Amino acid sequence: MAASEFDRATEVEAIGDGRFTGAVHDGWHIGGNANGGYLLAIAARAMAAHAERPHPISLTAHYLTPAPAGPADLTAEVVKSGRRFATVAGSLQQGGTERIRVLGTFGDLSAPPAAPQLIRAVPPELPSYEDCIGRPPANGPVEVAINARLDVRLHPDDAGFHEGRRSGIPRQRGWFAFADGRPIDPLALLLACDAFPPTVFHLDLPAGWVPTIELTVHVRGIPAPGPIRCVFETRFLADGFFEEDGEMWDSAGRLVAQSRQLALAPRDSVSAG
Amino acid sequence: MAASEFDRATEVEAIGDGRFTGAVHDGWHIGGNANGGYLLAIAARAMAAHAERPHPISLTAHYLTPAPAGPADLTAEVVKSGRRFATVAGSLQQGGTERIRVLGTFGDLSAPPAAPQLIRAVPPELPSYEDCIGRPPANGPVEVAINARLDVRLHPDDAGFHEGRRSGIPRQRGWFAFADGRPIDPLALLLACDAFPPTVFHLDLPAGWVPTIELTVHVRGIPAPGPIRCVFETRFLADGFFEEDGEMWDSAGRLVAQSRQLALAPRDSVSAG
Repeated sequence: MAASEFDRATEVEAIGDGRFTGAVHDGWHIGGNANGGYLLAIAARAMAAHAERPHPISLTAHYLTPAPAGPADLTAEVVKSGRRFATVAGSLQQGGTERIRVLGTFGDLSAPPAAPQLIRAVPPELPSYEDCIGRPPANGPVEVAINARLDVRLHPDDAGFHEGRRSGIPRQRGWFAFADGRPIDPLALLLACDAFPPTVFHLDLPAGWVPTIELTVHVRGIPAPGPIRCVFETRFLADGFFEEDGEMWDSAGRLVAQSRQLALAPRDSVSAG
Repeated sequence: MAASEFDRATEVEAIGDGRFTGAVHDGWHIGGNANGGYLLAIAARAMAAHAERPHPISLTAHYLTPAPAGPADLTAEVVKSGRRFATVAGSLQQGGTERIRVLGTFGDLSAPPAAPQLIRAVPPELPSYEDCIGRPPANGPVEVAINARLDVRLHPDDAGFHEGRRSGIPRQRGWFAFADGRPIDPLALLLACDAFPPTVFHLDLPAGWVPTIELTVHVRGIPAPGPIRCVFETRFLADGFFEEDGEMWDSAGRLVAQSRQLALAPRDSVSAG
C-alpha cells in the first residue's frame, strides 16, 4: 500500500539516543520556506516515536529560522514518562542550524476515559465542501506549493482576499483535507492548524510575511472520517502582535483540535519584522 | 526599599553556564504544592536574566511533578537570540527531580512598534474591586496559602462555589492584585493567569485536583497601574480534558495578557487523574 504524500514527507529514521534523520520535502512550502505546521508534524513524529506514544496531545513550537527543502536532523528528549502521558522536548535542525524547538505532551487518544462533557460552542457554519473555494498553488508572486498537497477550501466570503476583496474581518473559515485523500489523524491536525492563509490578510494592512513566534495546538480527539471544518480568528491586533485562534471540528460535529499562535503583524511590505 | 513578597519569592542567583539557584518559598501553595503560575515566574526570572531581555512575551510551561517548598535549581538555555526577541528553554528542579519545563520568547515590551491596531473584544464587566469578594486562605479542608499573598477578588456571581453555590457556567471573573500592593508587571501576569480557582469548580463535578498539562501565556503589554481585570472560561470539557482561556485587562482597558491551559477534568474525589 503506497504511503500518502504526508506520511512520506514526515518520515523520520531513528539513529539512536533520541536522534533522528529526516527531510524537509519540497512541495510543502510557501515562497520557498516550509510551512510551520508541516515542520511541526515532522518533529512530532520523532518525538512520538521516541516516547513510544501514538498521539500528540499538546504541542508548542517556537519558530527560529525558515526551513528550505533538504535533509533534517531531529532530536527528542523524554522529559517525563508517566502512566497516561509523556512530556517530550524536540528540535529540528538543518546543517547545524535549528529551525524549530518544540515542547509537548504525547499519549493515547483512542480510548478516552468516561468523563463529564460540556460543550459550549458549535462548529462554524460553512457551505458544503463542494461549494467552498479551492486554493491555488500561487498567490500573486508567491508560490504556495503546499496548496497542491492539500485540498483546503475556503468559505466563499473569505476567499477573495488575494484579489483585493478583503472581508475586513480577521477570520478564515473553510475545510481542510489532503489532495490525495489521506485520512486526517491527530498528526494531520498539526498541519491543519497552520494550513490556512493568515487571518490578517482580510485587513487593509501592508502585505507581507507574518512570522509566527509561537504555535500551540491541543489535539482533543481522533477525527471521524472526512474533511475538517476549520475556523481561525483574531481578536487582538495590537502593538505589533496578533493571536490567531483556531478550532478544528470533524464530520461528526466534534471539536478535535484547538490552536493558538502568536504572530508579528505586518509592518511593511518587505521586512520580516 | 523593601522588595515585595513576590520579588523575594521569585529571586534567583546565577551560578554560571545558564544555571541558577532559587527556592520555592512557603506560602505560595495550594494544599502544599506550589501554584503553577508562581513556579513559572521563578523559571521566567532565570530565563529572562540569562537571555538579558526584560520581559516574557510568550511562555509555555509543562507541569511534571508537584513542587513543595524548598531549594530549587534552575537552568536556562538561549535557543536563539535575535534582534527583537530571544527564544529560551528553561527548567526548574528540586533535588534532581524536574518540576516544570518551559519554552518561551523574551523581549522588550516597553517601546511597542507603530503598528495597526484592531481590538474585537471588550474587558469583562465586573463590579468595582471593592464590591468583589476576597478569597480566604482556606477552601474547606484545603489550605490555599497563596490567597494570603494575593488580593484576588471574585465577581459576586462567581464567588459561591465553595459553599455549594455553583454558577453552572465554567467561568471565573474577578480582579487580580498583590496583598502587599506590588505593581503588576509582565512577570506578575504569569502569576495572574493561574491565580484563580478552576473554572470547572462551577460545575456539578466530583471535587478534586485538576492537574494542568500545559499552560501558555502571551504577555501583550505592560499593564497600567492598578488591579487587573481577569476572566477565565472553558468552552470544551470533553473526553477527560478541558481548556481554560484567560484574558487579563489593565485599568486603562487594554488587554495585557492572554492565557490558555489544558487540564485534566476531575474524575473522582481522590485520584489525580
